[in-house]
Amino acid sequence: MKTQVCIIGGGPSGLMLSQLLHLKGIETIVLERQSREYVLGRIRAGVLEHGFAKLMREAECGERMDREGEIHEGFYIAHDGIMDRVDLHKYSGGNSVVVYGQTELTRDLYEARDKMNGIVIHNVEDVKLHDLKADKPHVTYRQGDEVKRIDCDYVIGADGFHGVSRKSIPADVLKEYEKVYPFGWLGVLSRTKPVNDELIYAKHDRGFALCSLRSQVLSRYYIQVPLTDNVEDWSDDAFWDELKRRLPTEVAGRLETGPSIEKSIAPLRSFVAEPMRYGNLFLAGDAAHIVPPTGARGLNSAASDIYYLYHAMMDHYLNGDDTGLEQYSQKALARVWKAQRFSWWMTTMLHTFPDNIEYDQRLQEIEMEYLFSSEAAQSSLAENYVGLPF
Amino acid sequence: MKTQVCIIGGGPSGLMLSQLLHLKGIETIVLERQSREYVLGRIRAGVLEHGFAKLMREAECGERMDREGEIHEGFYIAHDGIMDRVDLHKYSGGNSVVVYGQTELTRDLYEARDKMNGIVIHNVEDVKLHDLKADKPHVTYRQGDEVKRIDCDYVIGADGFHGVSRKSIPADVLKEYEKVYPFGWLGVLSRTKPVNDELIYAKHDRGFALCSLRSQVLSRYYIQVPLTDNVEDWSDDAFWDELKRRLPTEVAGRLETGPSIEKSIAPLRSFVAEPMRYGNLFLAGDAAHIVPPTGARGLNSAASDIYYLYHAMMDHYLNGDDTGLEQYSQKALARVWKAQRFSWWMTTMLHTFPDNIEYDQRLQEIEMEYLFSSEAAQSSLAENYVGLPF
Repeated sequence: MKTQVCIIGGGPSGLMLSQLLHLKGIETIVLERQSREYVLGRIRAGVLEHGFAKLMREAECGERMDREGEIHEGFYIAHDGIMDRVDLHKYSGGNSVVVYGQTELTRDLYEARDKMNGIVIHNVEDVKLHDLKADKPHVTYRQGDEVKRIDCDYVIGADGFHGVSRKSIPADVLKEYEKVYPFGWLGVLSRTKPVNDELIYAKHDRGFALCSLRSQVLSRYYIQVPLTDNVEDWSDDAFWDELKRRLPTEVAGRLETGPSIEKSIAPLRSFVAEPMRYGNLFLAGDAAHIVPPTGARGLNSAASDIYYLYHAMMDHYLNGDDTGLEQYSQKALARVWKAQRFSWWMTTMLHTFPDNIEYDQRLQEIEMEYLFSSEAAQSSLAENYVGLPF
Repeated sequence: MKTQVCIIGGGPSGLMLSQLLHLKGIETIVLERQSREYVLGRIRAGVLEHGFAKLMREAECGERMDREGEIHEGFYIAHDGIMDRVDLHKYSGGNSVVVYGQTELTRDLYEARDKMNGIVIHNVEDVKLHDLKADKPHVTYRQGDEVKRIDCDYVIGADGFHGVSRKSIPADVLKEYEKVYPFGWLGVLSRTKPVNDELIYAKHDRGFALCSLRSQVLSRYYIQVPLTDNVEDWSDDAFWDELKRRLPTEVAGRLETGPSIEKSIAPLRSFVAEPMRYGNLFLAGDAAHIVPPTGARGLNSAASDIYYLYHAMMDHYLNGDDTGLEQYSQKALARVWKAQRFSWWMTTMLHTFPDNIEYDQRLQEIEMEYLFSSEAAQSSLAENYVGLPF
């Protein structure tokens, strides 16, 4: 088979790029290791920055998002028994975020791909990238006993942290930066009415908690737990009890509980691989960088990579201009690192760190006091949370 | 002897409070362990926030400061061979700082005290604070063989980190927070023309450097050094060479060097003692809190304590209102901790930390990239540097 852009990974990044390029007449093939059902079963992020939402609309996939997604113009930080609101709309100069589950968004993208007869090949095994430094790279994969080959101009590595793409870059070329946090998030999804219209990030001596949502009938809650905890040891009741302890009394009192649909523990990690281009391979999203979920930068950082790649590919194929491709790694990383910084900052301000000296604990509290005393500090938070300019 | 307010410590804080209260008809006696010559020989801070300058004028001591001090509306951060300017004036809504050496300022305060026949007793030994929890505390001290006693309403502990005041508070009442940084500053004072009109904070792989000044003929330079370094091992030549290495080539090229008048190594420490009031003892300045010099908060934090104490004493003596005294510790600490936060932030962004993982080193660089890409971030820096509102 032949195509112009071979995209490894059928998650939201890969699908969105495929869709955007197709609309511009640029051919793609998407390879996905899992079945479509599996991909659509993953519970992931739910807060889209305004630039992401615009990209969805540009991909002609924004209709249901605009109808069913919720525009959030702020969120709350609960601490010391009170709730302080961050007015994103006011402090970001009129921007906001859209709360819309990644699962729904991925479903919309698949439907759009189907409508345009976009090629997404599922259940591929042994994906291998070849001749990345040559003029024409190619990709091979196995389906059952058959090994197939795709010849292309460019390969996009949008296959996540554990994918083959980043691993195809020689170790002496790649520089990896990593920071592991000494805790994880225990997350529960439940068919209950969200406790609050807007998200609540809670700082508490017992640990961080987050009240998030996917819709008005689907809630997503998290609590900070030690890395040694096992999800099997957390009953639903124990989860709800612990969550309530970390919320202001008034909020805990109106928390609607119910059986968990999904329950899992995710460790918190920051990771960046540089560069994001190797020959004709371009990394995007989790394949190149991971953030802790505090601050909702994960999927949004992937979207900014897709934005840069989309424009770079357009410039190349439609205008014969390779500047975008040449500058991709540098431009993408500049924004990625700012998202890393913001995620680190939110994580550090809100979590309990077991080894922190008392001075640092006080500094965490002061960070929050300063935040809510300063318009400049709230503007800084807001511009990062709604998404820095591309 | 009898007085209303007995002030321990004849540094700028104690003198300024004494002067301000005297102007309002409130009696004070200042006790100082050292001679006046010794106090005036100390080389200390040189950047006064705008609120401090206003307080100097209110104390009728601002004339020479306004004549000889320099108004700085910005400073530079040198990094990666370039200079980025922080426009304090623009981003703080029109404020600025005054560069005027602490030595000069202390001299002005002594002169003002002399003119008003203010009582400052030098060379006092064995200062002891008594009956702090009683209605009427008293202070004793020794001069030669003679032990003297001062009866008063209130005692102000403005006698620095090593002074007796904080140590007079029972250990079970006092909570101390401390953070020690793994480096110090080697400082040199020289009678040379400053290399730059405005301060230069330099971030460099070899370590932090600062180009500061006291006047147009008196320069103050610092370089970050390991705590194991001894000042005797640093010749003037070695200092200038190392300083130049850490500055952009163009700046190093125009650096005027000369013999050091003073050369010393100071460790960097953050420290806060809570509460700042114990009975009728009120702590102010270094007696209660210390910051690393990055960000120029030390003397300025002391000034904010003096501001609160001055108003609290006026309210008490002139209006019979004790609210200010009762709220002193809480109000002073709220501002002190914000200055601690800012000093920690500036220190962390600009210094080399020997144990930092590579991820954290990159975060430091990104902190700066983000700073100069964001109006909100520069506004936050500026409002802290010129001084948060009292």
